[in-house]
Amino acid sequence: MKNNQFAIQPVSTHQKIAELTQLGFLDDQTDQLTATELWYHFLRHTMLENPSEAGWHAFLTQTLATSDLTLAECRAQQRPVSRHMFQLVALQLLAFEVDVDYDPAHPDVAWRTIQLPALEHALDQPAAIIDAWYLLLCTHTKNGQSFIDALTSRGFLVPLYQLPATQKPLFFNGKALAVFDPTQLINEVVYVETDLDTDSDGQRDLIKVEITRPAETNDGLQIPAVYTASPYNQGTNDAWGEKMTHSVATKLTHKDPQQQPDIPAFPTPTSHRSTQGETTTAEETVHHQATYTLNNYLAVRGFAIIYSAGIGTKDSDGFQTCGSPEQTLATIAVIEWLNGQRRAFTNRTDQIEISAWWCSGNVAMTGRSYLGTLATAAATTGVTGLKTIISEAAISSWYDYYRENGLVMAPGGFPGEDADVLAAETFSRTKNAGDYHHVQAAFNDYLQQMARAMDRATGNYNDFWRQRNYRPNIKNIQADIMMVHGLNDWNVKLNQVKSLWDGLADLPVARKLVLHQGQHIYINAFRSIDFTDIVNLWLSNKLWQVDNHANDVLPDLIAQDNVVPETWTSTDQWEQPGHARQWQLTTDGLRERAVATTDSVTFNDQLPVDQFQTFSRQPTVWQTALVTTNNAFSCQFKTPQFKDDLLLQGTPELTVSLTVSVDHGMLSAQLVDYGTARRFNVSPTMLNRQGLELGYHWQKDDLREFTLADRPSDYHVISFGHINLQNRHSSAQIDALAAGQRVALTLKLQPIFHHLAAGHRLGLVLFSTDFGMTVRGNEAITYRIELGESHLVIPTVR
Amino acid sequence: MKNNQFAIQPVSTHQKIAELTQLGFLDDQTDQLTATELWYHFLRHTMLENPSEAGWHAFLTQTLATSDLTLAECRAQQRPVSRHMFQLVALQLLAFEVDVDYDPAHPDVAWRTIQLPALEHALDQPAAIIDAWYLLLCTHTKNGQSFIDALTSRGFLVPLYQLPATQKPLFFNGKALAVFDPTQLINEVVYVETDLDTDSDGQRDLIKVEITRPAETNDGLQIPAVYTASPYNQGTNDAWGEKMTHSVATKLTHKDPQQQPDIPAFPTPTSHRSTQGETTTAEETVHHQATYTLNNYLAVRGFAIIYSAGIGTKDSDGFQTCGSPEQTLATIAVIEWLNGQRRAFTNRTDQIEISAWWCSGNVAMTGRSYLGTLATAAATTGVTGLKTIISEAAISSWYDYYRENGLVMAPGGFPGEDADVLAAETFSRTKNAGDYHHVQAAFNDYLQQMARAMDRATGNYNDFWRQRNYRPNIKNIQADIMMVHGLNDWNVKLNQVKSLWDGLADLPVARKLVLHQGQHIYINAFRSIDFTDIVNLWLSNKLWQVDNHANDVLPDLIAQDNVVPETWTSTDQWEQPGHARQWQLTTDGLRERAVATTDSVTFNDQLPVDQFQTFSRQPTVWQTALVTTNNAFSCQFKTPQFKDDLLLQGTPELTVSLTVSVDHGMLSAQLVDYGTARRFNVSPTMLNRQGLELGYHWQKDDLREFTLADRPSDYHVISFGHINLQNRHSSAQIDALAAGQRVALTLKLQPIFHHLAAGHRLGLVLFSTDFGMTVRGNEAITYRIELGESHLVIPTVR
Repeated sequence: MKNNQFAIQPVSTHQKIAELTQLGFLDDQTDQLTATELWYHFLRHTMLENPSEAGWHAFLTQTLATSDLTLAECRAQQRPVSRHMFQLVALQLLAFEVDVDYDPAHPDVAWRTIQLPALEHALDQPAAIIDAWYLLLCTHTKNGQSFIDALTSRGFLVPLYQLPATQKPLFFNGKALAVFDPTQLINEVVYVETDLDTDSDGQRDLIKVEITRPAETNDGLQIPAVYTASPYNQGTNDAWGEKMTHSVATKLTHKDPQQQPDIPAFPTPTSHRSTQGETTTAEETVHHQATYTLNNYLAVRGFAIIYSAGIGTKDSDGFQTCGSPEQTLATIAVIEWLNGQRRAFTNRTDQIEISAWWCSGNVAMTGRSYLGTLATAAATTGVTGLKTIISEAAISSWYDYYRENGLVMAPGGFPGEDADVLAAETFSRTKNAGDYHHVQAAFNDYLQQMARAMDRATGNYNDFWRQRNYRPNIKNIQADIMMVHGLNDWNVKLNQVKSLWDGLADLPVARKLVLHQGQHIYINAFRSIDFTDIVNLWLSNKLWQVDNHANDVLPDLIAQDNVVPETWTSTDQWEQPGHARQWQLTTDGLRERAVATTDSVTFNDQLPVDQFQTFSRQPTVWQTALVTTNNAFSCQFKTPQFKDDLLLQGTPELTVSLTVSVDHGMLSAQLVDYGTARRFNVSPTMLNRQGLELGYHWQKDDLREFTLADRPSDYHVISFGHINLQNRHSSAQIDALAAGQRVALTLKLQPIFHHLAAGHRLGLVLFSTDFGMTVRGNEAITYRIELGESHLVIPTVR
Repeated sequence: MKNNQFAIQPVSTHQKIAELTQLGFLDDQTDQLTATELWYHFLRHTMLENPSEAGWHAFLTQTLATSDLTLAECRAQQRPVSRHMFQLVALQLLAFEVDVDYDPAHPDVAWRTIQLPALEHALDQPAAIIDAWYLLLCTHTKNGQSFIDALTSRGFLVPLYQLPATQKPLFFNGKALAVFDPTQLINEVVYVETDLDTDSDGQRDLIKVEITRPAETNDGLQIPAVYTASPYNQGTNDAWGEKMTHSVATKLTHKDPQQQPDIPAFPTPTSHRSTQGETTTAEETVHHQATYTLNNYLAVRGFAIIYSAGIGTKDSDGFQTCGSPEQTLATIAVIEWLNGQRRAFTNRTDQIEISAWWCSGNVAMTGRSYLGTLATAAATTGVTGLKTIISEAAISSWYDYYRENGLVMAPGGFPGEDADVLAAETFSRTKNAGDYHHVQAAFNDYLQQMARAMDRATGNYNDFWRQRNYRPNIKNIQADIMMVHGLNDWNVKLNQVKSLWDGLADLPVARKLVLHQGQHIYINAFRSIDFTDIVNLWLSNKLWQVDNHANDVLPDLIAQDNVVPETWTSTDQWEQPGHARQWQLTTDGLRERAVATTDSVTFNDQLPVDQFQTFSRQPTVWQTALVTTNNAFSCQFKTPQFKDDLLLQGTPELTVSLTVSVDHGMLSAQLVDYGTARRFNVSPTMLNRQGLELGYHWQKDDLREFTLADRPSDYHVISFGHINLQNRHSSAQIDALAAGQRVALTLKLQPIFHHLAAGHRLGLVLFSTDFGMTVRGNEAITYRIELGESHLVIPTVR
């Protein structure tokens, strides 16, 4: 195991002593103790299950202090604590295993190998023991949490539940502690009134908001809110979505300029509900429990947890619009309420107002995918009170989710999905059959308007997609942004986060990015990185204004290595000027020296019917055939083997000159790491089911980690891109194209951050139909690539 | 979805009224209500999140009562309740989805299709509404729990937490209700003194016992205990186990009679610890939380939950012995303590006694695999107090786990594992490095003795395995037995449970068996069967003596169909006399008409090196090649296609006459269902992660179900067997064998309960090396099968 911690704040000795005193490790008496006595004193404070003399005795006899002696034996011999003793005992406290993780004769070796934070001083003075113990409390155990959090999950902080509200929250090393009793959390519901009437019933849409807050808020403690806008969390209509999924067995056709379809519009509501009274007490409780485990972790640490599914979901009004401005407004309506700028009611009928009186007005948003997307959308409004978002695998423009360069494009794994399908899938008002009965016809009508407006016929960028592009508003962002994205996410693709990252470069807000090796997943329960601590440090700073220097302590960009497991490195830039490399496409493969040539290569998109059907049914079979076989439906270009390891960063750009045998066509490209190696498994490995406790007798999470596959593979696709040959200049505008016409184009592939191991080759594969993402026409179209005018650029190669 | 409920107890109207009154549905006032009024009254009682008028109004408007009208509209029109209205509203209460699970115009159709318990009466009288509502509370929701449990998870029973201890527990329909507050559970530890000294330190081995009991036990309530003996639950030594795993790349050799190895022995301890005092208060609490979700479910329903890892585990004394009589004695020591027959101490040193004063003395055991094995072992001692065991995927003889008919045999998926490996893996005293340090040498010495005694050289049955065979003691069983086993469990194989089932036939105890389509898994969170209710009914009867007729209500044998998902049928026998069918092996395949013939077929066990290596690395590749290709290393026999569906039950028996080209050899056989069909996925599909709540704000489980694979497969292996040709008469005794000698033998294959679909064929494949389970010698050995004297019998074919 290798530990990677980024969220340990360097603090002064004064602060260490204050915090250790707060936790009961130090008091008036401890000043008198020698270094060794102080060490035993600290150890004794970790006897939680049995603090009696017998329990202490059991601990001393069960713990090894040298390769030969137990702690009990060392103590009997009055041996002074040494660095080795401290480390050996610490390894046991951190749940590392003798003979597996460490050799008891050499604890210092394990300490380095596991990458535990280095002890700086000799341990002969009490001050050094204090330093070392403080650092140990910040250090991660084998089970993926800090030692202080591990102690917490064993009940260490339970006595602090009794502290008066005015003395809470508590922070340790800049991060909030779990000093709020989970059994006393208050769960309640309010209905926020929006300025929308998306279901055209003449009434402003009310949206249901679920709140979890500590009991201390009833005693005057005002706290910030962590808000997750999740269109999924009131249920989904999977069968309906499946039924609505579009066929991708369609042919691409020639596009002529035509009028853009209308986009659906909603009435502007005129009057607010009148207020029939006010209260500070909610009426409805909530049975549904928070499901994002990161939020569960925060819920006992001084953050209110807010969920809202928004318009068009169960118990709320309105329609699901899949990313429209109305959905953004509904999303920020909750923030406005939390910030005292908007009304909410206790129920849907009585018009009794209730404010978020318990809230400090500071809000963060969390969540992955659609949830992170709404967080991003909210941030681009510049809404007051939103201090930060942690957007994971988030969309910044829906066009790039369901379209690409004038093509209909499916998110990886979901051929035929589109905006209307997702709207239907998340329209959970179906879950209340009586409510649904009354809006069914109107919503179906809306879905049809939406289907016309999104325009699968041309795949062009239009007003529908312009409405769902948040990037032009990045300039309005006031919140600090933490982004998380999987380098293998083919669902929400890498250009979604790269655009946001780039757009934030010159804004006066902090930006942080974590790139991991997963697909479309959460990473808050990974063993090798202290992501939860990172979030805690960040939110303690942004929402509680703790002066923990989070902006400086946390690197701007943390990227997980794809070759060596459990390796995370930090940098400050995704692309670094001056490090670009260019390869020409040649009949010998990718070559760095440019050669003038009239050579060309061709491929034809049509397949025998059998093969076409196999590929359609099993895109993974197509994928392997595409990049590993000599075939007529693609052409492959490879570099020679590289002698040294390379780090490839940024947005690869492909310039191609080509002709096509008909008056329409699409060019697709994949960038491939060729080389036989044991690569990471696609999905993380479960290390410990429900093994990560998020508090004391509170929710749990599954501890996970990326591990190497048992068997080697021959390649890994690291990037890709697609373009309609009639959208060479813009996805919004149609270019002419005639059969045999020679055209040039530049195609940006998905951004990369890839470690290409020595001995591997970089490959580029050009083809047309992508069985994972595009339509499948199986048409006899020949593409001829003019090699002399075709090349690939990677902006940063180190 | 299809619902299968076996645990609904038919009860009298009197009992229904009493129980509904207890739950607050009925009171003095309700006598006056009409049928329709009573229905609304019941519905109103399910308003848990918002019981106000507004909440009730929201419910009425959100619920559909006819295909066109909401409940609010029907109520305004004063429509009387009809059966259709009751069913339509009930479908919504049970979380079924409009247009997906039911057509609102035909709720009765969905009711039948989903297999919800039939409403018997017209609903025009209050008595009929009471009947229907009572039954509805017993009926399962779409989310795999009874409606009363679904209400429970929303807080319905919270007011009953306040009942005095003397009025608890409460039962509904013969099953215990969750009326114990999970936040008030007491977690404590004691150390039971055994009569063993397996680590030879001169002291009786103490074993750690973890207890979870409701707070009401402190107020005089004595309750029964559900005890799980889990050698795993203090941690495992995976790396050590891997290192100790034996090589299977070894050749089978000729066996000559030889002396049996000695078995390890332990000293008999002479004196007990003296008692230094007594207490009723435990000293140590436990941080570790119960991990078997079935136990979590029971923990809030009036059952104390007990875990003990036993000898040789963290915080206990002694050695891990892998199933020896000592381990059985340590296992029942806990029951003896719970039953007042044995001493325990508050800690390991002070010798302060503590009794299980809160326990009624009635004990059940639960758990799967090794856990279920120890439950089985405990039951065969006839120990007082053990009223029942629920043994899942349990071993009844360790010989059949690690050996078979004179062969070393791996549990499926674990080639090279053996008793010594498992002992090392579960010896969690390693987790206390100081404790481990002092017993390391002695335990290693014991492991070596064990390795000699288990005798991988011959694979014969000997005293080591005799000690670990619980079947001769089945006759001592006093407890009622519920068994659960996966029909695809190749780890703990089907003959383990069949032997126990058969052995119990004539004993004066109740026996119940559930056979499911899983491998080596738990089934308590499956949607299509009410397994948790079955257990609740069973334990309420066995431990609380509730007169719920569990023995009669529950079928003796419930088996899951392997063709149609969500189909469970009940029967009372595994094998039914008079239904045997026999097939002769012929050159035309398996034929029912016996023919005199001197035909023979041959196969040779040697493979080309490449193929041998591929098969060794990837046993699944071998498996497919074995049964689907014409090859020289096996011979296949198939029946013609069957015209009708067949149910194949019991232990298939293969009689073979053969010669082998050398003086040693092993014959292996697989029974195969041939036919192209979409079969069940190997593992259950997760329907709802953490979607099954086991109480109110309490632990959760993942809702699962077996679903059909997306793609058809061509075969499924349904049984198998292996035999050493030198153990034709007994696994304990060596037969002579010379090259070319003709021998006859009978091989029992693993028991089956298999639905062979019409159009499929039954196949028998004979071969030698099993890359999944046997050693792999890759030796040129030719086997010649004499067809005229070879046949297959299946004892029950219907």
